[in-house]
Amino acid sequence: MELNYHGPWTESDAPHSDVIMSCRARVARNIAGFPFVNKASERQLQEILNISRQVLLGGGISEGMFWIDLPQATARDRHLLVERHLISKHHAASNLRRGVAISGDEALSIMVNEEDHLRMQILAPGLRLSHVHRLIDEVDDAVEKSVDYAFSPRWGYLTACPTNVGTGIRFSVMMHLPALKITNEIDRVRRAAKDLHLAVRGYYGEGSESAGDFYQISNQITLGRTEDELRMELEEAILPRIIDYELKARKILIERSCSLLDDRTHRALGILRSARLLGTEEAMKLLSRVRLGVHLERLKNVDLEKVNRLFLQIQPAHLKLHIGREMDSDELRAARADIVRQTMNQG
Amino acid sequence: MELNYHGPWTESDAPHSDVIMSCRARVARNIAGFPFVNKASERQLQEILNISRQVLLGGGISEGMFWIDLPQATARDRHLLVERHLISKHHAASNLRRGVAISGDEALSIMVNEEDHLRMQILAPGLRLSHVHRLIDEVDDAVEKSVDYAFSPRWGYLTACPTNVGTGIRFSVMMHLPALKITNEIDRVRRAAKDLHLAVRGYYGEGSESAGDFYQISNQITLGRTEDELRMELEEAILPRIIDYELKARKILIERSCSLLDDRTHRALGILRSARLLGTEEAMKLLSRVRLGVHLERLKNVDLEKVNRLFLQIQPAHLKLHIGREMDSDELRAARADIVRQTMNQG
Repeated sequence: MELNYHGPWTESDAPHSDVIMSCRARVARNIAGFPFVNKASERQLQEILNISRQVLLGGGISEGMFWIDLPQATARDRHLLVERHLISKHHAASNLRRGVAISGDEALSIMVNEEDHLRMQILAPGLRLSHVHRLIDEVDDAVEKSVDYAFSPRWGYLTACPTNVGTGIRFSVMMHLPALKITNEIDRVRRAAKDLHLAVRGYYGEGSESAGDFYQISNQITLGRTEDELRMELEEAILPRIIDYELKARKILIERSCSLLDDRTHRALGILRSARLLGTEEAMKLLSRVRLGVHLERLKNVDLEKVNRLFLQIQPAHLKLHIGREMDSDELRAARADIVRQTMNQG
Repeated sequence: MELNYHGPWTESDAPHSDVIMSCRARVARNIAGFPFVNKASERQLQEILNISRQVLLGGGISEGMFWIDLPQATARDRHLLVERHLISKHHAASNLRRGVAISGDEALSIMVNEEDHLRMQILAPGLRLSHVHRLIDEVDDAVEKSVDYAFSPRWGYLTACPTNVGTGIRFSVMMHLPALKITNEIDRVRRAAKDLHLAVRGYYGEGSESAGDFYQISNQITLGRTEDELRMELEEAILPRIIDYELKARKILIERSCSLLDDRTHRALGILRSARLLGTEEAMKLLSRVRLGVHLERLKNVDLEKVNRLFLQIQPAHLKLHIGREMDSDELRAARADIVRQTMNQG
């Protein structure tokens, strides 16, 4: 496995990183002349895989591209890719011939034979949708030089699921909304997002629970809108309002419940620095509170990069990679507490 | 108020102080020629008070005796005396003419016009029942030189409540039983104690809840037994078994659930060192776990004397005395967290 334990990207100075952990642009593409994945035979899937692999690793896509054949990968490595947000849970669990191509900096990943033949995504820290949009466009163009995409002049790019037909593009952001959670206003955000045809998902995307007060928000509908319209609506109209809403909730917390806020954030730090057993969910919750405390400058001498990195490093497959062996849940809880304690006590 | 904030006695090297926080001998006496308190007139109560005060402060009882007239004391000072275990909750709350005489070292306190005319107690850290028995006997004899006790040749010392008739003596110990609590065996101890005619009460005696895993255990029946029999049964037969039971439970915790134990004790210390708001009950629970961790040598560099002292210092009236003003419950929670944090971070 080419992925190391520490994770590739956590910039605490990325735009709006106080509220937006990361952003992503993803396009769904299918290769002309083949049925969609769910209709394709084993042989056809293998052929798609062979073509894709050759194109994606053939140069000209991104620096240091490498390939992971998922049926051959261990369960731990598949989980590691999910924890890293490089493949979907669905792609990890599937039984099909499938794989993923990843760039050396892990910003680009291209799942082959997930729901579509190609699912290409660019991830970046903070809110930089134009940036990820430009990069995914470049990747898309580079791939299209060697591959004939399934395309209809009337409908645009054809995709297995109708919601992706059209531009086939989806933008999403991973938002950290602890203050809206504490003030119980998160449900209003959920409802408002639904009205705006946005999907609100958990930390691991579709079907996952929110953990550590993280919410993944993405556009649902790609048909009948240009890519720029979709992006600009999200980037310039919707997200600034949610960011503003969260920041106002944080300000209200400081003004009206400062001692409660200080208590929660300092306790969280105290527990992270002293616990001997930690579950993933509790660790996420505590790290979330510490992250809030640091951004509000109520917690001093805490390295935000380390906190951001820990959200990845406390995940089970990351811990197993770090310790170098399989572990049961008790061992994982002990190992998680150890790594968190060591990291948080470094100051 | 002559009592200072820090409290008089916490010796971490007293006998069996790993399980027994303190012990007490108490005698109930009434002055001949007066009705019991609940039958006495205002004038008679005042007369009892005058006689008692004169005798108790007249010298020959103990060093540095001082008197607190409870109707004149502030509510805070009455609570302070309860928190210090120098008067009962009942004595603090009563509307009668009443008072308490206390020795300079706070080992001796004599409530006047509680349930009986005189309730005299000696408190000492650890398990030293012979010691407190000898001291209370000396006090009893010294008082009897100036006061004629109500006594029946058939029944012994006469007391308001029949359970105190006879020797009128009651021995009690404040036990710290966190391991029996964690292992859910505390109810077996309660049942066994009941079978042995012992009373099991909470941290503040009659009618109070157990807090911080403290249980006050005392003999119930004083009739038909000599004082020495009562004391020796408790000291040599019953308490050693409960101590042994608690110590075995601690050993089992280390052997079978060491990481769970370490997690609980280190978290408790971490929270005490970082919380900004602390309720009494939570603080007692956390201090109890830290006390357990220190006694089992799982927590290092924690000053046990400071921990023992904090059990007193975190109580509301103590905090108000320390801060020097009345406080509402939010202010108390903040002040409690502050004092605990400062103390526990001194190492």
